[in-house]
Amino acid sequence: MVDFEYSIPTKIFFGKDKINVLGREVKKYGSKVLIVYGGGSIKRNGIYDKAISILKENGISYYELPGVEPNPRITTVKKGIDICKENGVELVLAIGGGSAIDCAKVVAAGCDYEGDPWDIVLDGSKIKKVLPIASILTLAATGSEMDSWAVINNMETNEKLIAAHPDMAPTFSILDPTYTFTVPKNQTAAGTADIMSHVFEVYFSNTKTAYLQDRMAEAVLRTCIKYGKIALEHPSDYEARANLMWASSLAINGLLTYGKDTNWSVHLMEHELSAFYDITHGVGLAILTPNWMEYILNNDTVYKFVEYGVNVWGIDKEKNHYDIAHEAIEKTRDYFVNALGIPARLKEVGIGEDKLDIMAKESVKLTGGTVGNLRPVNANEILEIFKKSL
Amino acid sequence: MVDFEYSIPTKIFFGKDKINVLGREVKKYGSKVLIVYGGGSIKRNGIYDKAISILKENGISYYELPGVEPNPRITTVKKGIDICKENGVELVLAIGGGSAIDCAKVVAAGCDYEGDPWDIVLDGSKIKKVLPIASILTLAATGSEMDSWAVINNMETNEKLIAAHPDMAPTFSILDPTYTFTVPKNQTAAGTADIMSHVFEVYFSNTKTAYLQDRMAEAVLRTCIKYGKIALEHPSDYEARANLMWASSLAINGLLTYGKDTNWSVHLMEHELSAFYDITHGVGLAILTPNWMEYILNNDTVYKFVEYGVNVWGIDKEKNHYDIAHEAIEKTRDYFVNALGIPARLKEVGIGEDKLDIMAKESVKLTGGTVGNLRPVNANEILEIFKKSL
Repeated sequence: MVDFEYSIPTKIFFGKDKINVLGREVKKYGSKVLIVYGGGSIKRNGIYDKAISILKENGISYYELPGVEPNPRITTVKKGIDICKENGVELVLAIGGGSAIDCAKVVAAGCDYEGDPWDIVLDGSKIKKVLPIASILTLAATGSEMDSWAVINNMETNEKLIAAHPDMAPTFSILDPTYTFTVPKNQTAAGTADIMSHVFEVYFSNTKTAYLQDRMAEAVLRTCIKYGKIALEHPSDYEARANLMWASSLAINGLLTYGKDTNWSVHLMEHELSAFYDITHGVGLAILTPNWMEYILNNDTVYKFVEYGVNVWGIDKEKNHYDIAHEAIEKTRDYFVNALGIPARLKEVGIGEDKLDIMAKESVKLTGGTVGNLRPVNANEILEIFKKSL
Repeated sequence: MVDFEYSIPTKIFFGKDKINVLGREVKKYGSKVLIVYGGGSIKRNGIYDKAISILKENGISYYELPGVEPNPRITTVKKGIDICKENGVELVLAIGGGSAIDCAKVVAAGCDYEGDPWDIVLDGSKIKKVLPIASILTLAATGSEMDSWAVINNMETNEKLIAAHPDMAPTFSILDPTYTFTVPKNQTAAGTADIMSHVFEVYFSNTKTAYLQDRMAEAVLRTCIKYGKIALEHPSDYEARANLMWASSLAINGLLTYGKDTNWSVHLMEHELSAFYDITHGVGLAILTPNWMEYILNNDTVYKFVEYGVNVWGIDKEKNHYDIAHEAIEKTRDYFVNALGIPARLKEVGIGEDKLDIMAKESVKLTGGTVGNLRPVNANEILEIFKKSL
């Protein structure tokens, strides 16, 4: 196990109607709030109205930043910062999924920064003071409700980058599984793939001594595999939605990575796909993942795929190691495509050969030439993975 | 999954030589520290000297409360409170295992209470203000380094009770697995049994919908089973000590219980054994656990033992359910007795029939007549379990 410094400060209010704590919790930090959200779904399903009525009852004034994009843009972040600065906002409240929360985080981090907010995305060390952030989660996927990262797009430069600062972890998040009952099937599927990919990013690590973390990672994966399918078939199944929602938070809040050496891979590749083509993040992950797994499978890495196959998919441990590995990868692909109904190939989401090369090169631009930890891959290898995914 | 409000605020500094953060971290809270510890082991292995030298280098003045008992006594807590009050102590630093940390917690909670400190053990709602608490852990067992509970003995009344308050969670804990290299075999074994019992207390719950939590609980159990034995055979195996140490924290910090209905059982029974006989807590737990399991096994509970047997012990899931359950219980007993070398019977630790009845009655005194959740047991049933454990 490698050394770590654990800090997961976000408080979670989990359960039906937990939104009722909103007024009490917000007032610990102030009385002026910026509400950050995306499209109209929170207005259609009543969450917006409920939040507003609680804020009003508690004498909390609010401003709004609507229209956050599925891949949130730095231009939208700038608008939010301007509103906060003009009105002395004291807490940034995201209502939505990862996009709204990520946008809220960089708004909160940018209020005390005088330069171009894109600077703080490029370099988190420029972040000095972050307004308190809270979230009301409506989609189990990114885990942004309990981590300190944000993914922001710059459409001018075709960049999709990760902003990070410890103080960007929400002070509290409200997780009401019933809020995800109305999430459409394709988003439920993509969200489940996203959660699983967060686990893969840290599970497929070279650290062989973090047994506890690896077994917990498998617990999260098994949860996604069991309940992703159920949530698609029965959107109002509370047990399924609750398990997926809590899995989304635990997959990425640090619990599974503290104690391991990790370098993400598929997420960085996929960020290029969605930066260039604006596709759904979880769909890109699900398409790339099995092809990435096949690519990194070799004599040095097969042991990890055996662990994965035996502990997650219940494959007979007595089988030949490569047979277990191939079967596990095939089960992963089959789950994404046939159980979750996610497209199997990049061509199905409108991605052809023409930009693969530049996207492969961009994937490793900020990581010293390779991505990944168990078996790092360089731009040429990423190009191979992209081609296999076409 | 049942509703929950998650808050695990303790920061963890995990790894070899992490004690070096001590000065920096303490100074965030003040410059006057009470050091709470037990016997001489921290002086023999150099941890005491190292801590003192860091405090001195950082200009932090310190007072000492040595001699905390293995089952810490309220009389010792009182001494600590007096030292804090007299000297304006700003942080209470435990160096040791659960006993030192538990004692430190109630000292910290008692400094702002004017009455008899036993009052705040009996009723945590009387705790108003708690001094910051920190710990340097030397034994993987109780998990006190990351939870907000403390177990305190009152030898006058033969009571061993749990004090609880959210603010009693340490602000930070330093977990250096090398500090447990010198833990004797019997304490390593008892500590491992204690960690496993913490998991059992929340795993064997009636909540059937917390799939994620149950799989994570199994991850912790498998970790204990794998590494408890290795740590006994190879006391300086870093991987084993690190996995056990982190397991001790995660077993009880709330992660496995948030989302489940839980009522502890074997711990409450065992607290009576060690209140009356001053035996090692983990030994009492290991003796009682398999007999408690056998007692609560019936047609309503067998499904949970099947989960346990299949997922933790790798028993073939195609077998008859009762066969799986009995095999799992037998493997548990065998692990405690033969792998960890813990006595199998109460008689071996000097407990006879004479006080079983009063201890059984005391076990349920504060819990409304029963203990446990999956299948609650009353005083008569506890007496049966005690008798089977003789």
